Amino acid sequence: MERLETFPNPNPGRKFTITHVNPEFTSVCPITGLPDFGVMTVKYIPGEKCLELKALKYYYLEFREKGIFYEAVTNQILEDLVEACDPLEMEVISEWGTRGGLSSVINVKHIKSDKK
Amino acid sequence: MERLETFPNPNPGRKFTITHVNPEFTSVCPITGLPDFGVMTVKYIPGEKCLELKALKYYYLEFREKGIFYEAVTNQILEDLVEACDPLEMEVISEWGTRGGLSSVINVKHIKSDKK
Amino acid sequence: MERLETFPNPNPGRKFTITHVNPEFTSVCPITGLPDFGVMTVKYIPGEKCLELKALKYYYLEFREKGIFYEAVTNQILEDLVEACDPLEMEVISEWGTRGGLSSVINVKHIKSDKK
Amino acid sequence: MERLETFPNPNPGRKFTITHVNPEFTSVCPITGLPDFGVMTVKYIPGEKCLELKALKYYYLEFREKGIFYEAVTNQILEDLVEACDPLEMEVISEWGTRGGLSSVINVKHIKSDKK
Amino acid sequence: MERLETFPNPNPGRKFTITHVNPEFTSVCPITGLPDFGVMTVKYIPGEKCLELKALKYYYLEFREKGIFYEAVTNQILEDLVEACDPLEMEVISEWGTRGGLSSVINVKHIKSDKK
Amino acid sequence: MERLETFPNPNPGRKFTITHVNPEFTSVCPITGLPDFGVMTVKYIPGEKCLELKALKYYYLEFREKGIFYEAVTNQILEDLVEACDPLEMEVISEWGTRGGLSSVINVKHIKSDKK
Amino acid sequence: MERLETFPNPNPGRKFTITHVNPEFTSVCPITGLPDFGVMTVKYIPGEKCLELKALKYYYLEFREKGIFYEAVTNQILEDLVEACDPLEMEVISEWGTRGGLSSVINVKHIKSDKK
Amino acid sequence: MERLETFPNPNPGRKFTITHVNPEFTSVCPITGLPDFGVMTVKYIPGEKCLELKALKYYYLEFREKGIFYEAVTNQILEDLVEACDPLEMEVISEWGTRGGLSSVINVKHIKSDKK
Amino acid sequence: MERLETFPNPNPGRKFTITHVNPEFTSVCPITGLPDFGVMTVKYIPGEKCLELKALKYYYLEFREKGIFYEAVTNQILEDLVEACDPLEMEVISEWGTRGGLSSVINVKHIKSDKK
Amino acid sequence: MERLETFPNPNPGRKFTITHVNPEFTSVCPITGLPDFGVMTVKYIPGEKCLELKALKYYYLEFREKGIFYEAVTNQILEDLVEACDPLEMEVISEWGTRGGLSSVINVKHIKSDKK
Repeated sequence: MERLETFPNPNPGRKFTITHVNPEFTSVCPITGLPDFGVMTVKYIPGEKCLELKALKYYYLEFREKGIFYEAVTNQILEDLVEACDPLEMEVISEWGTRGGLSSVINVKHIKSDKK
Repeated sequence: MERLETFPNPNPGRKFTITHVNPEFTSVCPITGLPDFGVMTVKYIPGEKCLELKALKYYYLEFREKGIFYEAVTNQILEDLVEACDPLEMEVISEWGTRGGLSSVINVKHIKSDKK
Repeated sequence: MERLETFPNPNPGRKFTITHVNPEFTSVCPITGLPDFGVMTVKYIPGEKCLELKALKYYYLEFREKGIFYEAVTNQILEDLVEACDPLEMEVISEWGTRGGLSSVINVKHIKSDKK
Repeated sequence: MERLETFPNPNPGRKFTITHVNPEFTSVCPITGLPDFGVMTVKYIPGEKCLELKALKYYYLEFREKGIFYEAVTNQILEDLVEACDPLEMEVISEWGTRGGLSSVINVKHIKSDKK
Repeated sequence: MERLETFPNPNPGRKFTITHVNPEFTSVCPITGLPDFGVMTVKYIPGEKCLELKALKYYYLEFREKGIFYEAVTNQILEDLVEACDPLEMEVISEWGTRGGLSSVINVKHIKSDKK
Repeated sequence: MERLETFPNPNPGRKFTITHVNPEFTSVCPITGLPDFGVMTVKYIPGEKCLELKALKYYYLEFREKGIFYEAVTNQILEDLVEACDPLEMEVISEWGTRGGLSSVINVKHIKSDKK
Repeated sequence: MERLETFPNPNPGRKFTITHVNPEFTSVCPITGLPDFGVMTVKYIPGEKCLELKALKYYYLEFREKGIFYEAVTNQILEDLVEACDPLEMEVISEWGTRGGLSSVINVKHIKSDKK
Repeated sequence: MERLETFPNPNPGRKFTITHVNPEFTSVCPITGLPDFGVMTVKYIPGEKCLELKALKYYYLEFREKGIFYEAVTNQILEDLVEACDPLEMEVISEWGTRGGLSSVINVKHIKSDKK
Repeated sequence: MERLETFPNPNPGRKFTITHVNPEFTSVCPITGLPDFGVMTVKYIPGEKCLELKALKYYYLEFREKGIFYEAVTNQILEDLVEACDPLEMEVISEWGTRGGLSSVINVKHIKSDKK
Repeated sequence: MERLETFPNPNPGRKFTITHVNPEFTSVCPITGLPDFGVMTVKYIPGEKCLELKALKYYYLEFREKGIFYEAVTNQILEDLVEACDPLEMEVISEWGTRGGLSSVINVKHIKSDKK
């Protein structure tokens, strides 16, 4: 995840929430090879570091050609972002367009174990 | 329920939520023989297994000719899906079109008893 | 309330929620004699019995010519439905159209005393 | 239609449009005896007379117990209102709630023959 | 189309418009055998006859098991309804749910040739 | 209408449209003495003069205590504004809150007679 | 507050909630003398008495010419209504139109001290 | 455009309209190399041939890696689809997500020259 | 207007429409010195040249500190853009946020005189 | 922060909530020098002092030319407003327009430490 970058939290002494919504996420279905489209939302309470927005945009682009399931990509994004910025809490929510008449949403959450 | 299929949870170590919305569910009213139409939503925290989406679509099709009440079909879907994937928690919500001027919603929930 | 009918709860062993929305409720203002219009919503956790939908529709029709206040009709419907199906919990919500520039909502709730 | 009342058009020299929307119209289905609910809209260019709003409200109440089809009631209201106020143009639009899974709209229009 | 029924236009002397919206139309894709779901709207200026609403509902049910393309079913419904009630004008609009990421709408129109 | 002010049209050589929407208009019903509330919209093609916005706001305030019917106030505003700025075309639209279950809209239009 | 009237709670033995929404509230800014417009909502659990709706409408009219700040008027309405009907709980919410590019909401709550 | 396929118009004797909406179109900006996302709508009156929906989906996928401007891609799609099915009329509308704070829409239309 | 740039119309032989919406336009009121905020929309049929999007964004930024009336800024943008790209037709629409309780919209249109 | 002004809380004895929404906030991105646009919401429970609305408007204008990150500006506004009016609780929420295809929201909260 070399592309993900961070900058120092400007207010590390106060717990606050940052949300980034990407309505233009796309990856590839590993079974059919067809593209999937979704809205990818990241919501977190930063620790010492905040996610840099432009690098986050480029990180998402890496999935454009990648064959990966809904559940796996949502978990992987959580893990990559947690590793990059070590937040107090983070939630990743992916909302996917209709496939076979069904639309799907995946919610994954991380809480820093040694918090407090 | 031979048609329901599953795949291994890619992140069994982390509790996360999966939601599948089917806006094109239809069954048959057992009294009038007329079709019912509804939005069928499944929301669950997977255990070891996740529901495979295409099989879920075909499973829903089995109700297209079946005479069954709102309350019964919602409970049966919960039971079938719980049996298929043994989730930590699962909720099934059916929202039904207007009949006799009244629209209806049924919410049914399962929590795995030996959880924790 | 002879008109209200019930059928056996298909899953009495599991607590679940049933909601019926009637956007076409009408009664009469006891002061002006003019009709009132509202959306009448019933939300309940059934015990042994579920409300039969067609009978519920006819029950509501009994209020079409009845002079009764917002607060009283909402409470009476709760009482009649509780008496008819003895639910674990029930809530009745009436949302009324604008009168004198003011719109109103009444929420009434019943919880079975010997529950648990 | 003794109940319909009018008042003199305050600006008979200028063609302008008046629209009255009644979201609480109800009549009775002549076949089933069950109530119908709809939004009744009247849109007209007044001639010498304008429809008085309170009398219009009471006029609509006369249909509360009347068994009449969608098409017939919309045409009758147009005729009664045209007779009452002799407008240059008038349109009546009735939008009806769902019956048997189908919702309906009826549009009827009158243009004064000797206009111009 | 024996099921389609009509009743005499209550106001044959005045051109007016009738619209019936069926949000619960379903037929079957002739290639995949999977159900299609759509909103079927009929909008017409009646001649001597109006479509009876309950018969129209049952007519639509005949397509529930029928394998037929979007374009063909929309044209066929127009033809059947025109044959049944001989309207001055009629338009049928079918709006179809997402398939393969694409949603579709078909508009078909009939104007009585000897009109005027 | 001393309060209405204008400023020179910055582009008198080109026909363009200006729209001002006031969602906080209020006057008084001349029969009941109760306040009426509405959205007052003015849409015009200026000639040599444009309406000054702050003066227009104060002009509207003059109706706050005035007993006047929907139809009359809409026509009067059109006349006052036409007199003040002599536009090529002007339309005034008033949309009124629910009274007696009915909401109303009045549209009045002026076209400069010697135009062209 | 002589104008506020009440009627006996028809179901004093059951805690229920009454909400009245007035989308046409107006008072005057004490600094500029210009009118303020807002939506005034009252939500309460009645004790022995319920607020009479027509008197509430006239009570609100008393603020039409009154110069008073957002915070003060919301608190005063809560106090007046609490004094009038002595509710178990009451909340008043005022939502104000845009002034200087900013819109505002004030929420004030009362809980009867000797409750329980 | 070998991928585009057609099937015979089931009703060539009647002019009707077909609309296909693709909310998941993506191509690449030829300057920045970053992906563009848009809603691509095709609306046409078929001649002898209709566009086959699955082939249309695959045709759209060819743009996923292609660097091309908004204006050019919309014109090219129109040309390719016209060449494939020779419609009486066709319109292509592309609505693009925000770039640099600006969102864009391109509308291109074709009318068969020898029509009539 | 040195900043405005263009590129050759990729399809000069076909009349088509391009729309760019800027929801983040801001200028300054020349009387109060306070900022105005609006949505600025440009819609045009290109001739030989299309507006380059990034240059358009920078062009809009030039108004951030400029004191100018609604009517004047909308006309000036039309003139500058017409001069830059000489379109067959162009319309500029500015929709402004609430000031003094009033919101405003300005529509200005240009049609190339020697067209056809 | 000399510009921020306050006035005495009219009801210091009762905990209530004040919300001010500014949909026209703008600052400058410190990296690109381009303007950012957002909706800035302040929600607080006043102590002895309330924020004066006009001064708050002018305070926000100070950021119009200031280069500052989303996270920093939201935290700074919270600090400035807390210092100015010493509230029992305060939350600042900034919702930012799309940049690079991503939109963002920042929530920051303050709770008075010696409260209770």
